[in-house]
Amino acid sequence: MYIHAVSHYLPTEVVGNEYFTQLNGLSSEWIIERTGIVERRKAAPGENTNTMTVDVVQRLMDKTDLTTVDLIVGATYTPYDTIVSLAHEAQHHLGIADIPVVSISTACSSFINAIEVVEGYFALNKASRALVIVSEHNTVYNNEQDKVSGHLWGDGAAALLITKERQSEGDFNIVALLTGGAAHTAKATTAVMMKPMEGGVTMPFGRDVFINACQYMPKASLQILERCGLTLADVDYILPHQANLRISRNVMNTLSLPEEKLISNIQRYGNTGCAGCAIALSERWDTFKKGERIVITVFGGGYSYGAMLVEV
Amino acid sequence: MYIHAVSHYLPTEVVGNEYFTQLNGLSSEWIIERTGIVERRKAAPGENTNTMTVDVVQRLMDKTDLTTVDLIVGATYTPYDTIVSLAHEAQHHLGIADIPVVSISTACSSFINAIEVVEGYFALNKASRALVIVSEHNTVYNNEQDKVSGHLWGDGAAALLITKERQSEGDFNIVALLTGGAAHTAKATTAVMMKPMEGGVTMPFGRDVFINACQYMPKASLQILERCGLTLADVDYILPHQANLRISRNVMNTLSLPEEKLISNIQRYGNTGCAGCAIALSERWDTFKKGERIVITVFGGGYSYGAMLVEV
Repeated sequence: MYIHAVSHYLPTEVVGNEYFTQLNGLSSEWIIERTGIVERRKAAPGENTNTMTVDVVQRLMDKTDLTTVDLIVGATYTPYDTIVSLAHEAQHHLGIADIPVVSISTACSSFINAIEVVEGYFALNKASRALVIVSEHNTVYNNEQDKVSGHLWGDGAAALLITKERQSEGDFNIVALLTGGAAHTAKATTAVMMKPMEGGVTMPFGRDVFINACQYMPKASLQILERCGLTLADVDYILPHQANLRISRNVMNTLSLPEEKLISNIQRYGNTGCAGCAIALSERWDTFKKGERIVITVFGGGYSYGAMLVEV
Repeated sequence: MYIHAVSHYLPTEVVGNEYFTQLNGLSSEWIIERTGIVERRKAAPGENTNTMTVDVVQRLMDKTDLTTVDLIVGATYTPYDTIVSLAHEAQHHLGIADIPVVSISTACSSFINAIEVVEGYFALNKASRALVIVSEHNTVYNNEQDKVSGHLWGDGAAALLITKERQSEGDFNIVALLTGGAAHTAKATTAVMMKPMEGGVTMPFGRDVFINACQYMPKASLQILERCGLTLADVDYILPHQANLRISRNVMNTLSLPEEKLISNIQRYGNTGCAGCAIALSERWDTFKKGERIVITVFGGGYSYGAMLVEV
């Protein structure tokens, strides 16, 4: 399974930390110290997860041919429309008839969950060229006034063309991936929630999310390496879910890896949900060197996690 | 792939057509003539897609052992929580660690989309005992005052244990299934929508939904039979998506099948979204005879469709 191309989109409006200082007294220094976030992007009025889907699909079309896509998998937990899902919107934009389309919502782990769904369709021979879209409009469901988590969130989207067979020398090889739920843990279903009819995103037990994210992402990373017969010495980059720079650094410490091997965009975009890792992959795409190995690892509310080994 | 057991849950409150007569003047006769719906169920305050998930999982536990479930797939377009999804809630209730959990939202076709995701995990040998949950809380996102579609919706849920290998003589065999998107059609992305932040469910082009549902469900049913080397003469029952009794009858007419072969519960429950077919399967489970064949076919907003051949 290969990543043939990737694109991303970020809304133009930049919201700096000083916005939250004015709103609720949190200083920029405090936000940076606790989260690493300096600024985030906010979708404009009229923008949403479906418009950003069209944006990233259009940008992906500029990079590669999408006319023979035979599967679309969308992912978001901040949906504009739960009936006309991201996958439907993308199919409508592409105008391709009668291919399977499905959208998923497994919180911040959805990027790897979506690719695992694709892996299943490939194994069934029901598809061989899949379009994956991750798109989050956190700011519309966010209470900016919330001192606990109001300053964490940003908006953004990405799209990937994933193919069963290698299309070109430049493709990134998805060597292996795994996902798992950690909802058996005590606070999994109450730590961070997004209830559309009851006030949107809330995070009553952020510390529990922090602790579990710091445990599960290293654990999943080691598991996927072990399955591939590799060790941390074989890894060039770790790309963790972009939730909090302190979590990312904690993951690197647990794995005894230097910060040069960490890929991070949360400083500029905040927590962009399941889109964060894919946006980072898109931004860095041209800078990777042949043979480099990237472990992408995710952890999301609910809880669920995943890890994926990608070889350039 | 086999359905080993199925359970369902319906809220206790019954809402008859006279409720809508009082609300907006629609007569019961008019509603029955146009939709077949006599009454529907409404979730109580405090009930939602996640509580109904626990209800159906508990009922399924009364029928079969769920301790060795190794995959959970949830489906809803009326989510209580998009971060703590149905699949997370079910995992939390079961207390099973580290299995893949994923929730999907592909509107009313999600029941078969969810089973196709399971089929993929089985093909990958990443799972062999899957819990599938379909749960809809339409009434919370519905505008009852809406004369076009306010009277259509009902609440309900179902759960299924799907296994890769046959567990017992009583298992129903999923012989084959297919899904497809029809979002390439002109009004697919505007005909019926569910925007959590913009008023919930709306159906500006109900006639277009009607026409496409009447075309795609017979077409998908014939496709799945053809793939299995069977014809309509081999089919004992058609179980279409429970959207409207006139659509269901139109499907039967197109297939030249008598109404005795139609399975329908919309009269009593209204449109229960992606849960409708699974609730009907659960209600009728004990009445099917060995060797009977059921074609389940779905069509949902967005649009997407599917068909599945089940052998008792």
